[in-house]
Amino acid sequence: MTEHGISIKPLFIKMNDRDNVAVIANDGGLPAGTTLQDGVELTRRIPQGHKVALKDFAEGDAVYRYGEVIGYADREILKGSWVRETMLRMPEPPTLSELQIGGKVEPLVPFEETHTFLGYPNPDGSFGTKNLLGITTSVQCVTGVLEFAVEKIRKELLPNYPNVDDVVAINHAYGCGVAIDGLGSEIPIRTIRNLANHPNFGGEMLIIGLGCEKLTLDRLNAGESESDVLFLQDRSGFSEMVSSIMEMAKQRLERLNRRKRVEAPLSNLTVGLQCGGSDALSGVTANPAVGHAADLLVRAGAAVMFSEVTEVRDGVHLLAKRVVTEEVGQALIREMQWYDAYLSRGLADRSANTTPGNKKGGLSNIVEKSLGSIVKSGSAPIVDVLAPGEKVRKTGLTFAATPAGDFVCGTLQLASGMHIEVFTTGRGTPYNLSIAPVIKVSTRTGLAEQWHDLIDIDAGKIADGKATIEGVGEEIFKAIIDVASGRRETWADHWGIRNDLVLFNPAPIT
Amino acid sequence: MTEHGISIKPLFIKMNDRDNVAVIANDGGLPAGTTLQDGVELTRRIPQGHKVALKDFAEGDAVYRYGEVIGYADREILKGSWVRETMLRMPEPPTLSELQIGGKVEPLVPFEETHTFLGYPNPDGSFGTKNLLGITTSVQCVTGVLEFAVEKIRKELLPNYPNVDDVVAINHAYGCGVAIDGLGSEIPIRTIRNLANHPNFGGEMLIIGLGCEKLTLDRLNAGESESDVLFLQDRSGFSEMVSSIMEMAKQRLERLNRRKRVEAPLSNLTVGLQCGGSDALSGVTANPAVGHAADLLVRAGAAVMFSEVTEVRDGVHLLAKRVVTEEVGQALIREMQWYDAYLSRGLADRSANTTPGNKKGGLSNIVEKSLGSIVKSGSAPIVDVLAPGEKVRKTGLTFAATPAGDFVCGTLQLASGMHIEVFTTGRGTPYNLSIAPVIKVSTRTGLAEQWHDLIDIDAGKIADGKATIEGVGEEIFKAIIDVASGRRETWADHWGIRNDLVLFNPAPIT
Ligand SMILES: [Ca+2]
Ligand SMILES: [Ca+2]
Ligand SMILES: [Ca+2]
Ligand SMILES: [Ca+2]
Ligand SMILES: [Ca+2]
Repeated sequence: MTEHGISIKPLFIKMNDRDNVAVIANDGGLPAGTTLQDGVELTRRIPQGHKVALKDFAEGDAVYRYGEVIGYADREILKGSWVRETMLRMPEPPTLSELQIGGKVEPLVPFEETHTFLGYPNPDGSFGTKNLLGITTSVQCVTGVLEFAVEKIRKELLPNYPNVDDVVAINHAYGCGVAIDGLGSEIPIRTIRNLANHPNFGGEMLIIGLGCEKLTLDRLNAGESESDVLFLQDRSGFSEMVSSIMEMAKQRLERLNRRKRVEAPLSNLTVGLQCGGSDALSGVTANPAVGHAADLLVRAGAAVMFSEVTEVRDGVHLLAKRVVTEEVGQALIREMQWYDAYLSRGLADRSANTTPGNKKGGLSNIVEKSLGSIVKSGSAPIVDVLAPGEKVRKTGLTFAATPAGDFVCGTLQLASGMHIEVFTTGRGTPYNLSIAPVIKVSTRTGLAEQWHDLIDIDAGKIADGKATIEGVGEEIFKAIIDVASGRRETWADHWGIRNDLVLFNPAPIT
Repeated sequence: MTEHGISIKPLFIKMNDRDNVAVIANDGGLPAGTTLQDGVELTRRIPQGHKVALKDFAEGDAVYRYGEVIGYADREILKGSWVRETMLRMPEPPTLSELQIGGKVEPLVPFEETHTFLGYPNPDGSFGTKNLLGITTSVQCVTGVLEFAVEKIRKELLPNYPNVDDVVAINHAYGCGVAIDGLGSEIPIRTIRNLANHPNFGGEMLIIGLGCEKLTLDRLNAGESESDVLFLQDRSGFSEMVSSIMEMAKQRLERLNRRKRVEAPLSNLTVGLQCGGSDALSGVTANPAVGHAADLLVRAGAAVMFSEVTEVRDGVHLLAKRVVTEEVGQALIREMQWYDAYLSRGLADRSANTTPGNKKGGLSNIVEKSLGSIVKSGSAPIVDVLAPGEKVRKTGLTFAATPAGDFVCGTLQLASGMHIEVFTTGRGTPYNLSIAPVIKVSTRTGLAEQWHDLIDIDAGKIADGKATIEGVGEEIFKAIIDVASGRRETWADHWGIRNDLVLFNPAPIT
């Protein structure tokens, strides 16, 4: 087939034998009249990432992708047509009380050789992938003073401590003006507590509080000693606040600067997985490649977390079969129920998840998005389920329940102890975290080329047939170890992109 | 009376003839055995800001402060005792359906002379109190890139434009990963829209978006033209994103730099009132002085806003009498009902408002806090009631409904068009906003002395008898005009304290 004189090989992707739609993989889409390898002829131009009907659908017929029902035709759809979101009725989400728990638990074969990375050893036996001075806040009121101090620390102190990567202020909108005993308030409090103890902070703690906030040290319970805390209300004015923070920072920078990376088995590494700005290729290029990398990590003994409740809710029946015990299955159901109730209190439902960008990228609805998102988790058994912000307890694959919004999810994964994150994106987002490195994987080669100085790995080459899922999975696995070891820098860290963390506070503010 | 050889005059404050408790005003409190002027002898040491019983209370007796019931004795309380929060049962909040609307509307006499300030004239006829380059974001995903660009603008461009005060990025956690049609989502959207049009941005608009976010330009509807918007997904990588933002910033800085202050009547000034970190003196020193300043502002033709729903809820019967029409009264009731429902959906109630610091400062409960907070509003009729983030529509006194948390309230008041804020604090908070100057008024001289380089005006001298409520009110009125005119700099602006804005999003996140 040629277009404007250039020969184009029609590429389309079918994930499962049962599928009766396929996704157009060619950059720029394919024009009307194109004949696909199996004889289907396109009735009109279909953009990249969008779906083509592989058969004639009558109204009510089930539409299959990933071997699962992603919707029902709400009209007649002819073979070769562009199948769009408006043509599909969404199926109901799986009923939580009827889920099959377990039954599809096939343990992965551990690698015989020991895999290691170079991490900073911490006093408690854990390891860090960065060497950061972390400054925790117990209330939003201190943010302005702290940001002033952090700028001064970066300029005046940090250059003297070349082994320290950066200083990170854990600023947030919590701590006061909130219903501190309200529904779900344990989530933001646990998140701050666990962030204060992040392994990339080298066992050094520094907490800045105001003095009259609702989030008292008793509630925060971060394990700090008295000398780790500074309350602004105890200081004699702004200049003294800043100089006190500088002094406390200096003591800690001295100690952090003496740290050195050592070889550590991968069982000391916690990897988080997330997607953001998804398109229909997410589920066929980047996410399956990340899924393969997840399997390699599990086989190498690491802990791997996947998250984003609203993006797994519609595929939860697939996850429930993979849990190792009834107890883990019940924890999975508990987290889904909690979120269902949370959304319904706010008169929202799961359909609130998909974005205009998702739809433009070819994702018809949250069901299709879910199925493509779950692929990130690979094929390992699910050994544990965490409530939002809880610390990872086991190596192997864990489902860490979080909202799907990128910064809320990333913040909660950091609280769970994440050392490094793999982030897939189709539409493109310059997402980064300051506390742990983020490896960005694009679903499309077009994005990797356009954002040449932001995307770390291009999984789009899978769609072009230039690479395999396994090949890119291995590339990601290797990049994780290199970045975790400080041998490779992500693009976002190269530029020093710092995003604010965002706490998940399900309780009302006052 | 002497203590440690120093003679101390016992100071205590009774606000209303009906009051049967008084507040100890002496710095450091008063020791046991002290006899107050009216013969009451203290049975034990009472700290500053805390209440003394002026009579013997039987169990169930009403305790009056500000002439209103702040609680009922839950035990016998002897004359001269320290009346603490644990000894009081809270009264029920006023029943909204039974409020008396109007009836206490006494218009203030306008000043004969015209009062003016020096403001930056805007193309739409409004005026600014600062000359800022404002950069709005439509989604949190762009924050990291924008903060990088803003740092570069401050360093490389701003020095060339000496008439421009600063560049302010309106970063927030909204725009995607939220239920964009959820309950109350109009609030954060309206807030961003109105912030983008803040009068201190000189009619210049600049919006940074990602490209696939849920908060589309259609929904945001900020009145921008196409050349005012940059989507990161349209740019070829990080360096180009940053250089494009710099270029758009430069064009606007050129125009902003040509602006000059001109004299404008006070009817062009909108003043916001807020308190944070309150203590029992808030209601007897700083807030009444601010109330007097509010009356002067209203008489001079300005618009004045007070806010903080949970802090007026228990005194709403006092406000309802002051509204100018039945319609304004119904709007007041509507906002109270909305917040009651919002809190109850999250299983919280108004008692969630008071903080440990409030209680340590002598405030027994939200009823007492409310009565002291409402005093800020002075005595003018209430001409209008705004839903959160709506623009001010009238000069005179408006109740702008907001939560009470300092940054959420300040952000919403800015969205309402606030040019300058007066902020009272008893416990002390280094609060500031970047978009409009904040004058900080302390309730205690001790705080003004301790935070000598943060507190702009000390209202504590009222408690010492060294100044009157009216005198400090005039001082505040004058400071508002001087700061609004650029003749006086607040301490927080002197240091350049920049706090992040915090959006009020009552809807769930996804
Ligand atoms: Ca996400
Ligand atoms: Ca990073
Ligand atoms: Ca407040
Ligand atoms: Ca300011
Ligand atoms: Ca910030």
